Amino acid sequence: MCADVGDRTGAFDLDGALARARAASRRLAAVDRAAVLRRVAAALRRDEAPILAANAADVARARATGTPEPLVDRLALSSARLRGIADAVVAVASLPDPVGRVLEGWRLPNGLEVRAVTVPFGVIGMVYESRPNVTVDAFALAFMAGSAAVLRGSADALASNRSLVASMRAALTEADPRLADALALIDDADRGRVTELLQARGRVDLVIPRGGAGLIRHVVETARVPVIETGVGNCHLYLHDDGDPDMALAVLLDGKVRRPGVCNALETLLVHEATAAAWLPRAAAALREHGVTLHACDRSRAVLAAAGAPLDGVVPATAADWDAEYLGPEIAVRVVDGLDTAIEHVHRHGSQHSEAIVTRSRAAARRFQAEVDAAAVYVNASTRFTDGFEFGFGAEIGISTQKLHARGPMGLRSLVTVKYLVDGDGQTRG
Amino acid sequence: MCADVGDRTGAFDLDGALARARAASRRLAAVDRAAVLRRVAAALRRDEAPILAANAADVARARATGTPEPLVDRLALSSARLRGIADAVVAVASLPDPVGRVLEGWRLPNGLEVRAVTVPFGVIGMVYESRPNVTVDAFALAFMAGSAAVLRGSADALASNRSLVASMRAALTEADPRLADALALIDDADRGRVTELLQARGRVDLVIPRGGAGLIRHVVETARVPVIETGVGNCHLYLHDDGDPDMALAVLLDGKVRRPGVCNALETLLVHEATAAAWLPRAAAALREHGVTLHACDRSRAVLAAAGAPLDGVVPATAADWDAEYLGPEIAVRVVDGLDTAIEHVHRHGSQHSEAIVTRSRAAARRFQAEVDAAAVYVNASTRFTDGFEFGFGAEIGISTQKLHARGPMGLRSLVTVKYLVDGDGQTRG
Repeated sequence: MCADVGDRTGAFDLDGALARARAASRRLAAVDRAAVLRRVAAALRRDEAPILAANAADVARARATGTPEPLVDRLALSSARLRGIADAVVAVASLPDPVGRVLEGWRLPNGLEVRAVTVPFGVIGMVYESRPNVTVDAFALAFMAGSAAVLRGSADALASNRSLVASMRAALTEADPRLADALALIDDADRGRVTELLQARGRVDLVIPRGGAGLIRHVVETARVPVIETGVGNCHLYLHDDGDPDMALAVLLDGKVRRPGVCNALETLLVHEATAAAWLPRAAAALREHGVTLHACDRSRAVLAAAGAPLDGVVPATAADWDAEYLGPEIAVRVVDGLDTAIEHVHRHGSQHSEAIVTRSRAAARRFQAEVDAAAVYVNASTRFTDGFEFGFGAEIGISTQKLHARGPMGLRSLVTVKYLVDGDGQTRG
Repeated sequence: MCADVGDRTGAFDLDGALARARAASRRLAAVDRAAVLRRVAAALRRDEAPILAANAADVARARATGTPEPLVDRLALSSARLRGIADAVVAVASLPDPVGRVLEGWRLPNGLEVRAVTVPFGVIGMVYESRPNVTVDAFALAFMAGSAAVLRGSADALASNRSLVASMRAALTEADPRLADALALIDDADRGRVTELLQARGRVDLVIPRGGAGLIRHVVETARVPVIETGVGNCHLYLHDDGDPDMALAVLLDGKVRRPGVCNALETLLVHEATAAAWLPRAAAALREHGVTLHACDRSRAVLAAAGAPLDGVVPATAADWDAEYLGPEIAVRVVDGLDTAIEHVHRHGSQHSEAIVTRSRAAARRFQAEVDAAAVYVNASTRFTDGFEFGFGAEIGISTQKLHARGPMGLRSLVTVKYLVDGDGQTRG
């Protein structure tokens, strides 16, 4: 077999790239990272022609291999999209520096002074399968947080990513030749390089995967380095018996219809039995209007049938539906006998991402927020707000669905760690 | 082969224990955890006779199998030690509740109110090979942090651990029968149970290993669940050319001699070439007096020889010495040409635990603290202060040597995570 290795002449030297990234990361403390990022943004605008040409080649290859048009659209850049990507780099550069913040400090009885100060991770790896803009976003965020970025994008976007990385590295070199290696693209189709990255203990400080459930699972199962799991969302909306029906309908449609392919979209609707007869037929009609298929439990189907609602687009829910992340025009629907069953359902099937209740009851709202174990728990609002920009973080590297280090939307401040500085006059413990 | 399975009649049901621990963890929000811990402490005092009897059996077994006496001493309990263990539980119960703290909160332009609130992890696993007191400490800290604890201690201490856990579970049951499963001991010598625990994704929220480098490495390489690495310390002391020689000697002896078996003890001494001739012979004599072997670089040995210092107890350093965690009366010694080389040495060989410089120079102190990448960086003080009690945290579950979630000494507040509570009036993103 003769693999298509493009213009490469040998395997990518990951060990070398990580060592150079480490060395470059140590330079970052000495530079105005915001100023450098503005130069990077300018370079991306300046290099529009070669970047769009490389992207056109990726797009043509994708079409030739029969990639569905929505995925081609995710891959495709345009002059406007590239300007948007460059603008996002400028936006990151304008955020407060997350490095060097004294989080707390105190004096010990022996006179030692202790300060906890935010410091960079060092080398951050990103493994992703998204649009080419992630290549730029991930670098900009890591760099602003004082770390070098080692990126592994999808094979589909390789030409685009090479071109974007070349432009950004040129800008880094112009700013300071020793900075160029603060950005590396793992330019190698061999999946073994990903495994190497995930197991490079001591040489990469953190790896963040961004993509579908399969990618996340592979990374978590392979990694021997610290990882932050992101972005798998089986999000629920529970309508309590006293919830405002119009509000519930608005929150439901916002969560299911506007952008069903994102992780904070709704995947399951739970309805209190006391309100199901009056509300569920109306909700089903609205979902039907938007082409959403309902995977409905027996009681839900009985309620709809009793109301004379049309049952095409309504299919019986199977056990698998409660755990499904459809990411499309489908929703699981269950009638429950109350708050306890709703919370128990979320505990059993949720992915600890975002969960919402619509209720007028203070007690129900408090119990739902206290007992549901998820990154974000909403009362009378859409799960779609779980997002770094919506939360006001000014940027987002991903949404953590695990409990270590960062939970929910991760902005710049989730990309730093801490160091204790201790100052004394010869203190010993004795 | 007929394995000695003690009084067990079958394999430990880890799946069941984790499920029961999860259910019990959900009860913890409703109880006065401090009050329950005080009952646990009382039970440990009350059950002194059976606990000491079980421990005596472990001790006898250890002696019979030729365990070195210092290790036997680590295993052995006495009436006084058990009272100390119970007192530590009371101390944890008197700490501020780490759960339910609003870390920050803000209002979005659309009126949504966001609060970041500390919440328990849920189920915390501990894998350790230390004294029986860790069984009690780990449970008390996890419980006070609102989580259930699933413990795997060493086989040597199994009878002691069973007895301690039985006493504590009885106290939990007295407080509330649904609380007993908030503490489980993996009572099974099969190492496969540890692997199961480390790969129980979604069923255990965090595993903390405590023990030697081999245990830590095994856990990190096996785990598919979030892990915090702890406690491997290759700590350095660097004496700059202008450092106070008496202070440097005191810091050196405090770090190397007092308790060489702990992770914040010194393992390497770096000496500026300008001060080596005057100071190193003195330091070597003091170390020699305490029976410490010096693994010395060529320049160090030349300095000592030139000063006419006795060279027994001084051996040539090999490459392996710079990475060694001796945990005993040995130290690696290197003469360096200045701060840059010292920092570079620490970068190359340090374990990112605790590092110290002795200097009078403000510039050298600032550079050392800024550039050395470690959990705690000391100026003119002993690395031995890296400790949850010394730092004033009132307790310690371990010392993190990785950068995710917690770095350095981990007290109660490192055992909680965060949840965003979002309150609205029907807001949708649209």
